[in-house]
Amino acid sequence: MANERLGTDVIVQIGIIVKDIEKTAKDFAEFFGVDMPQIIVTEEYDKSHTQYKGKPTNARAKLAFFRNFKNVEIELIEPDENPSTWREFLETHGEGIHHIGVFVKNMDEKIENLKKEGIEVVQKGDYTGGRYAYMDSTDKLKFILELLENF
Amino acid sequence: MANERLGTDVIVQIGIIVKDIEKTAKDFAEFFGVDMPQIIVTEEYDKSHTQYKGKPTNARAKLAFFRNFKNVEIELIEPDENPSTWREFLETHGEGIHHIGVFVKNMDEKIENLKKEGIEVVQKGDYTGGRYAYMDSTDKLKFILELLENF
Repeated sequence: MANERLGTDVIVQIGIIVKDIEKTAKDFAEFFGVDMPQIIVTEEYDKSHTQYKGKPTNARAKLAFFRNFKNVEIELIEPDENPSTWREFLETHGEGIHHIGVFVKNMDEKIENLKKEGIEVVQKGDYTGGRYAYMDSTDKLKFILELLENF
Repeated sequence: MANERLGTDVIVQIGIIVKDIEKTAKDFAEFFGVDMPQIIVTEEYDKSHTQYKGKPTNARAKLAFFRNFKNVEIELIEPDENPSTWREFLETHGEGIHHIGVFVKNMDEKIENLKKEGIEVVQKGDYTGGRYAYMDSTDKLKFILELLENF
């Protein structure tokens, strides 16, 4: 039973905003008994085309992925100082769980489906091999829904 | 590959603190195209034996469970005014994702494993057919880890 508006019924990712990704990734690796993952940095604007609240932003983030749970991946995110949903979350709520991510097909169509429910894109961008859109679902769902589409 | 300290590598639940569960459960049901779930209230102290920060508390919460994602259940939680991790989260962070839950066996043993890592129980209690313990994992993991054990 897929969730019709999203076309999926699987949560693939839980995203956590952190202040110090080196420290928290080390704590995670130690706690879960797994290797320290590589910490990557999102691309610069010319490749990421990041838009936050409808405007281009130079925001970047450090990311680390943990796959020690077999059914859901955990993503750690350390935002930089530029405007982004990541930075806004850190300043408003502090560290904690920022989003739930799902894979979709035909992202533009799914975004249109959500717009009809009054849920707009808050941030979107590209990464190597795919793209993402954070949806402004907080009023309704109390979490940010991330749409991910790999090509 | 089980996470050794927990004896599991599956996330079973994402718990979300809300202010008005009737409204948010209705929004969820509508958004995901599923039936409105029953809203239940946790047991009184004589059955729940709820302990928060090592002391008995009369705290109760309204709960609603969504199983529209097939790999992880979403729990909505509306705390009452009594001291609890739910209430504390709402007052500190506002509405949002409060915990990640896993099923464990031999909960006491798992709690001991976590204590050795400096992670103590912040709240625990009983429900019909099982028990739970919220672990004070926020410093290390940036989320509250909930241990669930059904009998």
